[in-house]
Amino acid sequence: MIELLLMNKGLVLVTNDDGIHSPGLMALARSVREIADAYVIAPDRERSAVGHALTMHRPLRVENLREQVYSVNGTPTDCVAVGLAKILPQKPSLIVSGINRGANLGDDITYSGTVSAAIEGTIFGVPSIAVSIMLDGTQPPHYEAAQHYCLLAARFVLKNSLPYDTLLNVNVPNLPLREIKGVKFTRQSKRIYDGSVHETASPWGEIFYWIGGGKPYWEHGEDTDINAVMEGYVSITPIHLDLTNNKAIGWLRDKWNGI
Amino acid sequence: MIELLLMNKGLVLVTNDDGIHSPGLMALARSVREIADAYVIAPDRERSAVGHALTMHRPLRVENLREQVYSVNGTPTDCVAVGLAKILPQKPSLIVSGINRGANLGDDITYSGTVSAAIEGTIFGVPSIAVSIMLDGTQPPHYEAAQHYCLLAARFVLKNSLPYDTLLNVNVPNLPLREIKGVKFTRQSKRIYDGSVHETASPWGEIFYWIGGGKPYWEHGEDTDINAVMEGYVSITPIHLDLTNNKAIGWLRDKWNGI
Repeated sequence: MIELLLMNKGLVLVTNDDGIHSPGLMALARSVREIADAYVIAPDRERSAVGHALTMHRPLRVENLREQVYSVNGTPTDCVAVGLAKILPQKPSLIVSGINRGANLGDDITYSGTVSAAIEGTIFGVPSIAVSIMLDGTQPPHYEAAQHYCLLAARFVLKNSLPYDTLLNVNVPNLPLREIKGVKFTRQSKRIYDGSVHETASPWGEIFYWIGGGKPYWEHGEDTDINAVMEGYVSITPIHLDLTNNKAIGWLRDKWNGI
Repeated sequence: MIELLLMNKGLVLVTNDDGIHSPGLMALARSVREIADAYVIAPDRERSAVGHALTMHRPLRVENLREQVYSVNGTPTDCVAVGLAKILPQKPSLIVSGINRGANLGDDITYSGTVSAAIEGTIFGVPSIAVSIMLDGTQPPHYEAAQHYCLLAARFVLKNSLPYDTLLNVNVPNLPLREIKGVKFTRQSKRIYDGSVHETASPWGEIFYWIGGGKPYWEHGEDTDINAVMEGYVSITPIHLDLTNNKAIGWLRDKWNGI
């Protein structure tokens, strides 16, 4: 471990979207400090489902809460942008985002603040990992299992880096460490939420709509992120920032010429 | 045109991230009404750079401003989610998002509310198009050119649909229609913004950070979205919601076994 620390003298930026007071963030920071010099820069409160939102319409306040721990009154993406540009003394070797209370699987990753922080890091050329625990609401989070696998992934990335423009999306089943069966490298699954917009009325009878809940239908294909986690494995999906559907370019060109 | 209307009896949902009062939205709605029955459902004010944000922490108010025109006090993603679930009388045949004042190219698309509305539509199985004009701040937007090419793309999608899990990201140079050279089918480019976090002080001397501006460095590769628009072409990029870097899965598996 000392060897690894000496080999990678850089910093690790730790962030999340559950906010600076989240136990998952502090668990993650403690783990990362075993192998590297960690700075924690996280939103001052929960910023879930904010997607890859940048705050550009107002200035951001940074509070230095204690040594190498900062809060920002913005999104996870803001934390990474401001952290890289103004807080960290040098470019970090790694960004880890999490440990998120709740899975980030399938299409949900585009809504996820946790994953978006890793997207922002990747855009700026810093290898980045997002880590989440799949919860079902009945058990408290087993942070120790997520910490263990996050450290494995962090060591892996510090040693091997990552393919161009690619981050790791890590999802851990909510099990005691000894019950986790291992790691699977997976592809992103598909899901649709059904019935996730609810009508509600104000005390004055005005109708409002509240988004949330609903029943997710998953595409349970082989090799998918959701399947791995449901089977008790840690899912690691390499996520690419180039969203081009290259195969579709030729199709479009052919069909377009026909109109 | 009447033939097309009869062929596609469905609706078209028109939205944006510049807000319900944006001239680009109304220009788009007018164009779409030439070929289909359009509903406009858009944010009540500007919601740029919000990414794929869903509002889940508060209920949303929908205002019916006039026939088939609604505002929502939320994000573009909220507009699509609530529109599909609660406002539209049936599932639309197409969603068009725009016309955005400003390009959505390269990695910027992950921040873009305009593109995120099209992502939300695609998740729910509705073919979706995002349309933006590249502005340089010196000229007012040539909406007529963007309207023309958006209608072409809309007709194309109503006739041919789109590949699975794929939306069209359309960027139009800010030129009079006759000066546009045609359409190029492109891939997403890369960009890094340099110097986009600025220090500012409150009247009481407290330091704040403001994100914005900065100098974008583009990867100007052949076939990229930015190159097409810079050369005076309309760029159409097929964007895929499956972000898996499939090639990286094997690499990860091999390297992981070595740790």
